[in-house]
Amino acid sequence: MSADYQPKPEHKFTFGLWTVGSSGADQFATTFPVRGPKTPAELVRLLGEVGAYGVNFHDNDLIPLDATPAEAEQIKKDFRAALKETGLVVPMATTNLFSAQIFKDGAFTSNDPKVRAYSIQKAMRGMDLGAEFGAKIYVFWGGREGTETDATKNPLDGLKRFREALNFLCEYNNSQGYGYKFALEAKPNEPRGDIYLPTTGSMLAFIETLDHPEMVGVNPEFAHEHMAGLNFMHAVAQAWDAGKLFHIDLNDQNYARFDQDWRFGQQNWKQAFFLVKFLEDVGYTGSRHFDAHAFRTEDYEGVKDFARGCMRTYLIFKEKARQFNEDKEIQALLAEITPASGEMEKFEGKFTAEKAAALKAFSFDRNAIAARGLKYEKLDQLLTDLMMGIR
Amino acid sequence: MSADYQPKPEHKFTFGLWTVGSSGADQFATTFPVRGPKTPAELVRLLGEVGAYGVNFHDNDLIPLDATPAEAEQIKKDFRAALKETGLVVPMATTNLFSAQIFKDGAFTSNDPKVRAYSIQKAMRGMDLGAEFGAKIYVFWGGREGTETDATKNPLDGLKRFREALNFLCEYNNSQGYGYKFALEAKPNEPRGDIYLPTTGSMLAFIETLDHPEMVGVNPEFAHEHMAGLNFMHAVAQAWDAGKLFHIDLNDQNYARFDQDWRFGQQNWKQAFFLVKFLEDVGYTGSRHFDAHAFRTEDYEGVKDFARGCMRTYLIFKEKARQFNEDKEIQALLAEITPASGEMEKFEGKFTAEKAAALKAFSFDRNAIAARGLKYEKLDQLLTDLMMGIR
Amino acid sequence: MSADYQPKPEHKFTFGLWTVGSSGADQFATTFPVRGPKTPAELVRLLGEVGAYGVNFHDNDLIPLDATPAEAEQIKKDFRAALKETGLVVPMATTNLFSAQIFKDGAFTSNDPKVRAYSIQKAMRGMDLGAEFGAKIYVFWGGREGTETDATKNPLDGLKRFREALNFLCEYNNSQGYGYKFALEAKPNEPRGDIYLPTTGSMLAFIETLDHPEMVGVNPEFAHEHMAGLNFMHAVAQAWDAGKLFHIDLNDQNYARFDQDWRFGQQNWKQAFFLVKFLEDVGYTGSRHFDAHAFRTEDYEGVKDFARGCMRTYLIFKEKARQFNEDKEIQALLAEITPASGEMEKFEGKFTAEKAAALKAFSFDRNAIAARGLKYEKLDQLLTDLMMGIR
Amino acid sequence: MSADYQPKPEHKFTFGLWTVGSSGADQFATTFPVRGPKTPAELVRLLGEVGAYGVNFHDNDLIPLDATPAEAEQIKKDFRAALKETGLVVPMATTNLFSAQIFKDGAFTSNDPKVRAYSIQKAMRGMDLGAEFGAKIYVFWGGREGTETDATKNPLDGLKRFREALNFLCEYNNSQGYGYKFALEAKPNEPRGDIYLPTTGSMLAFIETLDHPEMVGVNPEFAHEHMAGLNFMHAVAQAWDAGKLFHIDLNDQNYARFDQDWRFGQQNWKQAFFLVKFLEDVGYTGSRHFDAHAFRTEDYEGVKDFARGCMRTYLIFKEKARQFNEDKEIQALLAEITPASGEMEKFEGKFTAEKAAALKAFSFDRNAIAARGLKYEKLDQLLTDLMMGIR
Repeated sequence: MSADYQPKPEHKFTFGLWTVGSSGADQFATTFPVRGPKTPAELVRLLGEVGAYGVNFHDNDLIPLDATPAEAEQIKKDFRAALKETGLVVPMATTNLFSAQIFKDGAFTSNDPKVRAYSIQKAMRGMDLGAEFGAKIYVFWGGREGTETDATKNPLDGLKRFREALNFLCEYNNSQGYGYKFALEAKPNEPRGDIYLPTTGSMLAFIETLDHPEMVGVNPEFAHEHMAGLNFMHAVAQAWDAGKLFHIDLNDQNYARFDQDWRFGQQNWKQAFFLVKFLEDVGYTGSRHFDAHAFRTEDYEGVKDFARGCMRTYLIFKEKARQFNEDKEIQALLAEITPASGEMEKFEGKFTAEKAAALKAFSFDRNAIAARGLKYEKLDQLLTDLMMGIR
Repeated sequence: MSADYQPKPEHKFTFGLWTVGSSGADQFATTFPVRGPKTPAELVRLLGEVGAYGVNFHDNDLIPLDATPAEAEQIKKDFRAALKETGLVVPMATTNLFSAQIFKDGAFTSNDPKVRAYSIQKAMRGMDLGAEFGAKIYVFWGGREGTETDATKNPLDGLKRFREALNFLCEYNNSQGYGYKFALEAKPNEPRGDIYLPTTGSMLAFIETLDHPEMVGVNPEFAHEHMAGLNFMHAVAQAWDAGKLFHIDLNDQNYARFDQDWRFGQQNWKQAFFLVKFLEDVGYTGSRHFDAHAFRTEDYEGVKDFARGCMRTYLIFKEKARQFNEDKEIQALLAEITPASGEMEKFEGKFTAEKAAALKAFSFDRNAIAARGLKYEKLDQLLTDLMMGIR
Repeated sequence: MSADYQPKPEHKFTFGLWTVGSSGADQFATTFPVRGPKTPAELVRLLGEVGAYGVNFHDNDLIPLDATPAEAEQIKKDFRAALKETGLVVPMATTNLFSAQIFKDGAFTSNDPKVRAYSIQKAMRGMDLGAEFGAKIYVFWGGREGTETDATKNPLDGLKRFREALNFLCEYNNSQGYGYKFALEAKPNEPRGDIYLPTTGSMLAFIETLDHPEMVGVNPEFAHEHMAGLNFMHAVAQAWDAGKLFHIDLNDQNYARFDQDWRFGQQNWKQAFFLVKFLEDVGYTGSRHFDAHAFRTEDYEGVKDFARGCMRTYLIFKEKARQFNEDKEIQALLAEITPASGEMEKFEGKFTAEKAAALKAFSFDRNAIAARGLKYEKLDQLLTDLMMGIR
Repeated sequence: MSADYQPKPEHKFTFGLWTVGSSGADQFATTFPVRGPKTPAELVRLLGEVGAYGVNFHDNDLIPLDATPAEAEQIKKDFRAALKETGLVVPMATTNLFSAQIFKDGAFTSNDPKVRAYSIQKAMRGMDLGAEFGAKIYVFWGGREGTETDATKNPLDGLKRFREALNFLCEYNNSQGYGYKFALEAKPNEPRGDIYLPTTGSMLAFIETLDHPEMVGVNPEFAHEHMAGLNFMHAVAQAWDAGKLFHIDLNDQNYARFDQDWRFGQQNWKQAFFLVKFLEDVGYTGSRHFDAHAFRTEDYEGVKDFARGCMRTYLIFKEKARQFNEDKEIQALLAEITPASGEMEKFEGKFTAEKAAALKAFSFDRNAIAARGLKYEKLDQLLTDLMMGIR
């Protein structure tokens, strides 16, 4: 095994134009960006330089909201040339339904029918644009779909409106033959006080209420689940279990904080490790998309350091996962911890009345079963040693 | 309208035996309970005295884990007598799958097949017990289903085991003819580091993967959703929208804190108001179950104050909701905030290719639409005035 | 008592230029402000219209960073005229040490000596500007004083640099005869990953390490303490107890969330009530400064609704506090809850060896003392009733 | 350098009797402990076996609340023998002012004068007991000093009562010639809704209001600061800067969660690393006290794994800190990041009017200074590589 931690196309590392293109502005410095703008084509070349596989975009990352048709054509031409030059692909596209003033109280769920119609229009056009560049995943993040006070909107209306918009767009996808899979991205709050469908779990449930659930999955984001203090890998596992892990947004974030969007693996090494291990163990084949940005302290050289770091840390953890899976002591402990069914086998599997009766009548020695120490402290310490490179 | 805020049976106010029966012990005072034990029958009488409609229980709230059959019979007899005397009903029952040592690493999702089988046995017996007292809702809270470190368990195994257990128990329900609806209760953490299926949303999604989704809904808990900093009413609305609001646990809790289980309406008046308004507006007919307990500072007189307070505050907010719905200025603002479809109507409803084409070609004056002030500050201040009793 | 809830100068309600002047932009809409700019003079008139007592500013709220001297003079002239016209005063001023790119890694605590020197220069100039308009409180909020990763900076250096800057500026205050009191404002995070001296408590401790602790106090902010999930009123009480409550920033904010800066009393009615009660009960005479802004949904009429709402809610809670203090049942309960010293009096007060010996030898009936129910559930429910206007 | 990560006395690793002696009970299993009790003497031997340096106790960890004098003597005799046998020392002692029912509404800050007097009595007796075993640090954690609703207690009374108690006990310390340093331990909440003086910063500030501030410092706890989402190392640095780091409680804990008290270094490797690096870099000579406990899944072999893991991980991070300090590339980056004062030197140091005038007049090229990229992404990635053992 060669552990050189260099990104290769088969790793499927992608970045959004908005990530390496972030100006470093924030709410306390809106008019003071620290990094000057780069064109989409320039950003593609930057990504090519650091070894990324693909680039994703919101409609307005590529074509500014008020660009003329001629400007749009030129931008697309340049962008296409840069893709060709670098070999990068565009696996995913999405719509910006949150920056412009018109979305100040929501897009698909706005109280204003004009805003809702405009949002669907913008999403259709965004789908057209993504299809032009071969995107097969279309992400929906409803950044403004929520409230600051529930006096203003009934969440049942919000759900209904969101559902109608997605149903319409699924049909549009079919009618155009785009072949998109939709990936819904949850976030609990910010910029709204509370955002509807705040967790990956609630998105998964919502999908089942759509007309075309088979077309729609999720795009879980590390940082967003951490904002709610939730275990991100568990959310990803539920999505995988449901066959709905269509895309993933990797970054880093402390629990119960504002949206930090840090370099993948910057802060929560242990959680990030378990996530990488999960994705590799189950054989996830989609993009590893980094939805993050460099610190405000950085210039564009720092942006490259940031992007390289995201991929490198992923690969470090992938190698650690391999070591974990091949570590004899760890695997022996896991085997011990997870005993075979033994005499319980007769109670397992499909229900029968006889099985239920037998199980109800079975006598368990509750305290004897409980007495066994489970060696989880030992196992977890072995993991610490492995991660720190001392075993 | 007579606003005397007195509980009546039609309000469907219920309490668990474990709520008014709480000893006031906590993790820093495990061997120092502040309130001596009361029998189930005594607790029923206490609930009758304060005006509750029903009483719910875990199997071991009623019958201690190691009670003899004779002891169990006597307890049930006394309990039944108290129910008859007070007129209280038992709408819901549940299983304690978290206190005994055997559950130290989970019940249905334990790594140990014996623990898993024992848990199913215990749940079947708990269902039998609940059915004896007429319960029609059976709650599952998997307090120990989770991990402190993901080195120890694969969440896919966790989901699979949890699913198999519920599928088995759904069939058991059918085979016994109990007619239960199951209500799954989510909690993000505590006592485990992370609990599987941590939010109401993730439970709703999980239900769709079961063999009998129609039999299973949710039991959202105010405090649990607040532990993850989520808007509880939004979670309840999603459950209602999906036809899955089978039960509800009312209490109070600060965001991002340990499980506080305070008196309903103690702390978050605004969130509690919106919840009550939602339940009353949609016509929810299930139990209003208070899963809370009195402060450690209280004796049993204080427990009654606590229980009365839960119900009184619910009724205060119900009356406020009525006032809100009838307040002309508020309703006029809401009408203004939520304009009719007008010329957008032609783009709404079911997808057609023509509709999509027309919408894509429509010219929106984005900035004009955005310019309208939405008067949400004004509306929300009117709510403050209404709640504070000064309008 | 006339409870008309109208703001009057004696209420000392102040707003920052940046609050009513907020463009409604946020990190997801940096180039899409929803409200066009107003000049400082226009904002003063807006504040005059809604009944504010005073207006506060950062240096660059009044004079843009790159204004020419002539522009600056004209702005000041217009601002002064508006103050005269409206009767508003300027009780507080502060320095913007966080927006410009130069502060990207801190101001006083930057690793770059030039940035540190520039920051002190900017603060001196800001003090000059504030003094021109009669400000007597000078606030320091170190929005960029912190880190995203502690690999980059030693917090001991951070504390040392912050201290040296404040010591220098205290001397500058003396040398110019400005008579300022400094008020330090804590915030736990955002825009930095972690901000130094994150709570009001840590600021109070830090003040004791300065050369002129008597000149320096705190400016606690409701939203900032709530970001750390802390009880804001407790923090204010500690500041008051230490004689250090020089200023206060009122707004609203959920626990463990991004910096929401909502209308005072929007969300956490109970916490806001206890705060108002505290300030009124102790006789705090400083500004009630609202460091908040209107929702993004609002136009300037909504900004006025927002500003009026902040003041109105404060006055509603002030009236509720009066009612609480005069409510016979509540006061009787409080008297019962807080018994007199009685036979304990002999153990209280200053230490003597005899007293200690007597106390050590005294025999307490621990369980008898513990048995008393404290009626806190009852008291707290009476508060709910009072607040909801039904007693 | 021999990095065998074996604990030695000079590392000053200590554990509380309550840590390795934890029964594994929690609030959902109060009557179902998973580990049977061990005597203090047995726990000392367990600590000796794993290589600890010292053992600390609450009064009632050693002597149960209702032990007879004869029982107490026997326990002490056995405990002393075990200390002698193992060579362990007792560096710290403290008082349990939170478990017994009498403390249900506080100890030093209770509304009941009898409870306050009893608490002081108990603390004096606890100090006597600690002194008997040579303890020189006496910790105060006020677990019950707070409120669930501020209707019940005025925080100014709370501060006053807490201050009077500590002043009394400082004098008692002097009068007995015990030579204790007091170390105050903050916690934001749990078991109370809000605990007074919730952060290390607020404790540091409070100390300055005592009669003998020189005798009193702090005992910061990793888990407690993390409950408020605060950077623990920053809090420790402020304590160190103030000369008040008298003791430290090491464990692990997610942000914004219930009190988890996990094995040191279990979860937040990066934060734990920076803490160890800080303590080692500044030359902290006090105890490294682990205030944590093994998972509920463990038997006493697992408790030993837990204790060994705490110490081992500390030593791993200590070695990583050494590597960080000796890594040429990292140190070169740090030197570049932290430039010398250069021409700024003339503005630094003590204030003079001339210096201020010169600084005010100096012309900074703000944008040029800001343009420099700070390479923090690169530096932080080097740290990741170092920690993961791949550089």
